[in-house]
Amino acid sequence: MQQIDSLTLAVRGALFHCPVKGDFEHHEDALVLVGADGQIESVLTQADPEFAALSDTLAAAGKLTQLAPGQYLMPGMVDLHVHAPQWPQAGKGLDLPLYDWLQDYTFPLEARFEDESFARSVYPHLVNALLANGTTSAVYFATVHNPASVALAEICLEQGQRGYVGKVNMDDPSQCPPYYIETTEQGLADTEAFIQQVRALPGNEQGLVNPVITPRFVPSCTADMLKGLGKLAQRYHCHVQTHCSESDWARDYSQEHYGQTDVAIYRDMGLLTSRTILAHSIFLTDEDMAAIRDANAAIAHCPLSNMYFANAAMKTREVLDRDLQVGLGTDLAGAPIPSVFHTCLDAVNHSRVREDGTDTHRPAGERGEAGSRVSFLEAYWMATVGGGLAIDARVGLFAPGYAFDALVVDANAPDSDLYLPEGMDSPRDLLEKLICLTRRANIRTVWVQGRQVINK
Amino acid sequence: MQQIDSLTLAVRGALFHCPVKGDFEHHEDALVLVGADGQIESVLTQADPEFAALSDTLAAAGKLTQLAPGQYLMPGMVDLHVHAPQWPQAGKGLDLPLYDWLQDYTFPLEARFEDESFARSVYPHLVNALLANGTTSAVYFATVHNPASVALAEICLEQGQRGYVGKVNMDDPSQCPPYYIETTEQGLADTEAFIQQVRALPGNEQGLVNPVITPRFVPSCTADMLKGLGKLAQRYHCHVQTHCSESDWARDYSQEHYGQTDVAIYRDMGLLTSRTILAHSIFLTDEDMAAIRDANAAIAHCPLSNMYFANAAMKTREVLDRDLQVGLGTDLAGAPIPSVFHTCLDAVNHSRVREDGTDTHRPAGERGEAGSRVSFLEAYWMATVGGGLAIDARVGLFAPGYAFDALVVDANAPDSDLYLPEGMDSPRDLLEKLICLTRRANIRTVWVQGRQVINK
Repeated sequence: MQQIDSLTLAVRGALFHCPVKGDFEHHEDALVLVGADGQIESVLTQADPEFAALSDTLAAAGKLTQLAPGQYLMPGMVDLHVHAPQWPQAGKGLDLPLYDWLQDYTFPLEARFEDESFARSVYPHLVNALLANGTTSAVYFATVHNPASVALAEICLEQGQRGYVGKVNMDDPSQCPPYYIETTEQGLADTEAFIQQVRALPGNEQGLVNPVITPRFVPSCTADMLKGLGKLAQRYHCHVQTHCSESDWARDYSQEHYGQTDVAIYRDMGLLTSRTILAHSIFLTDEDMAAIRDANAAIAHCPLSNMYFANAAMKTREVLDRDLQVGLGTDLAGAPIPSVFHTCLDAVNHSRVREDGTDTHRPAGERGEAGSRVSFLEAYWMATVGGGLAIDARVGLFAPGYAFDALVVDANAPDSDLYLPEGMDSPRDLLEKLICLTRRANIRTVWVQGRQVINK
Repeated sequence: MQQIDSLTLAVRGALFHCPVKGDFEHHEDALVLVGADGQIESVLTQADPEFAALSDTLAAAGKLTQLAPGQYLMPGMVDLHVHAPQWPQAGKGLDLPLYDWLQDYTFPLEARFEDESFARSVYPHLVNALLANGTTSAVYFATVHNPASVALAEICLEQGQRGYVGKVNMDDPSQCPPYYIETTEQGLADTEAFIQQVRALPGNEQGLVNPVITPRFVPSCTADMLKGLGKLAQRYHCHVQTHCSESDWARDYSQEHYGQTDVAIYRDMGLLTSRTILAHSIFLTDEDMAAIRDANAAIAHCPLSNMYFANAAMKTREVLDRDLQVGLGTDLAGAPIPSVFHTCLDAVNHSRVREDGTDTHRPAGERGEAGSRVSFLEAYWMATVGGGLAIDARVGLFAPGYAFDALVVDANAPDSDLYLPEGMDSPRDLLEKLICLTRRANIRTVWVQGRQVINK
């Protein structure tokens, strides 16, 4: 029988995950064994001859977490696009045009993070809210300020979240407000220092927190800034994140100033790598998609924020069918809901609106784009496995060698909207209900790299 | 000073409501006085000379509920469109085409309500879930079965929800499955009996629960059924609910079989009255809108379910601008989320997608319908005041003569996603955050007609 000395933790109960895109795997009673490094050593089912005895031995050794009926072990969720400083803004003004929203709310708020103590008052609340909603990995835009951005990385480490943190770059005076801008030189120097600081953080020896090179988007950066950041990306093999072809305006700006698409600009600047995450990517050409796949870069699909600010729906169907790397992002506070479960639902919703179109004055055949729908299972795959691929981390699945980033969803929690009457749901029904209706109140326990970070 | 003997209840604290469409009223410290009949007697603010003394007297008499900081008194939410028997289905198969969803899930499930004991196992869970989400008034489609439908009315009464319950009519063999259909004659007789039974329910002397005449939609009913139901509506002055022009198929069906729109058909059958609620109403013509306004009928706008099944976006902007009566519906389980707060968010979301369109292959100017956006305040007005007008009840506002249907939202509840740091939000910001991020866990107390029905 397997030695249990090397194990720190085992969880037994019903389990869902999606090893194959568009499909899922379910066990009514599985046993997940976690080693001292927080990695999964093995996943056993009742068919395994050792199952019962090992389970008993682990229970006797006080190492077994046994799930109750109505509880489900699921992979931790990956949020590929969060604007951390905008957390106090979540839910404000989302019925405004983008320009007003940015000028009236966002930029003045982000500028306040020059004060590190303000950052330290906001960021812990955000990281806790995301963990409590089941987000075990988060990819963050911070602000231009180094101290506040390093503080966010420290807070991720303290609370135990797998964090990808970017100090934002924006140096073009024609596009940035005078009170919230950096010079090219200072921005590049700060970025290099930021990379080194985050990598050297005490407690970060396992690389739980990673620095991310973060040009805000093409219009906010000079060409010199983009080039300089590209060099840093190549030198430090860092992750890169930015916005890509989010709106008509952004797409047109790049054409006007560079005669190129965003994807081509990022590629030419050295910013399109296998560690790059492109948020939104709405107006992709076929060549853009090919370039993203050639580079093995990833897309962060943010369906709810797209409804507000993207001017169109993402070609999610095509991106999935062409096997591009793609995960989901909440885009807080460009959308107000801090839950990747909810983002799955929104991905389905927006794909269905895209399929059918909106305008009653057009005939049905000219209204939408047939065949665009995305299934719940595909959305959930993006939220877990797809997100894991995008951040180059072995997370999102229960398999040996993967980090134990996981959560327990409890359908019987107080204030649950889940209704799972006995005998009425197939495993697929169950999973779809969990995707649609899991709320923060349902999430009882969260682990990241084997560490229990939420328990209630 | 006001006599307090006639009062059963008073609530003091911060208050939000929307007396004017598209605007809101906020008091940091108000006092709402409720009489023995569950109606609001008066609403005082600190500017009132009696405010402090009356508050003290009520507290001493044990009649005062004092809200804590971070708690907000808000009107109860009105859900104009709920398919009660579909509750076990919430979250299942919403990425399927409508036909599959109905045939594989919905009709077999609804048919099970022939067994009253099955209904009595499902309906209490639903009514509780809606109340706990702040829905003080709900307009229900039940099934064709009288006993189960009367049971739903009884359960609303027991739990104290303002219920509008319809026994569904569907008698056209070409459109109804053989296992879930009624004859014209039996359907009309059952409907008349149902109206009388609900009105006569013990405990219903105040009319908290009301019967609603409920042809499922044009295709499921014969013309004789629609005519017969129209006569019942005129005879009993009942509310009427049905689906209206929900999809391309439904619109085309009516044109093919009647050469008319749904609105014209319902009008000619005597079903378009001041007590009629038309769910969806996507493909309305200008003449339809005029007829709805002439009749003083109401629309139940169900934005999330429209994303799945309506084939287009509702002309919500035009409906609001032309002063038609309109409120919101969750359309459970045509959408999975049992919260009218969430429906407000979806109304904004869908209106913004309509404004901008979805198809990246079209130029921006040909993609959407400019000027379509709906504000959060308009959505919230629909959810409260608009819903109240639609059900012909004095609810949705804090004003003398209105029923005290209200709830306490607590931003500091455990598992809250609301983040309201001191000094960063205007009252409008606060209200928008409450609309976007209030979840069941935030709703501490719910009253209907002065009766406390949820407290946690």
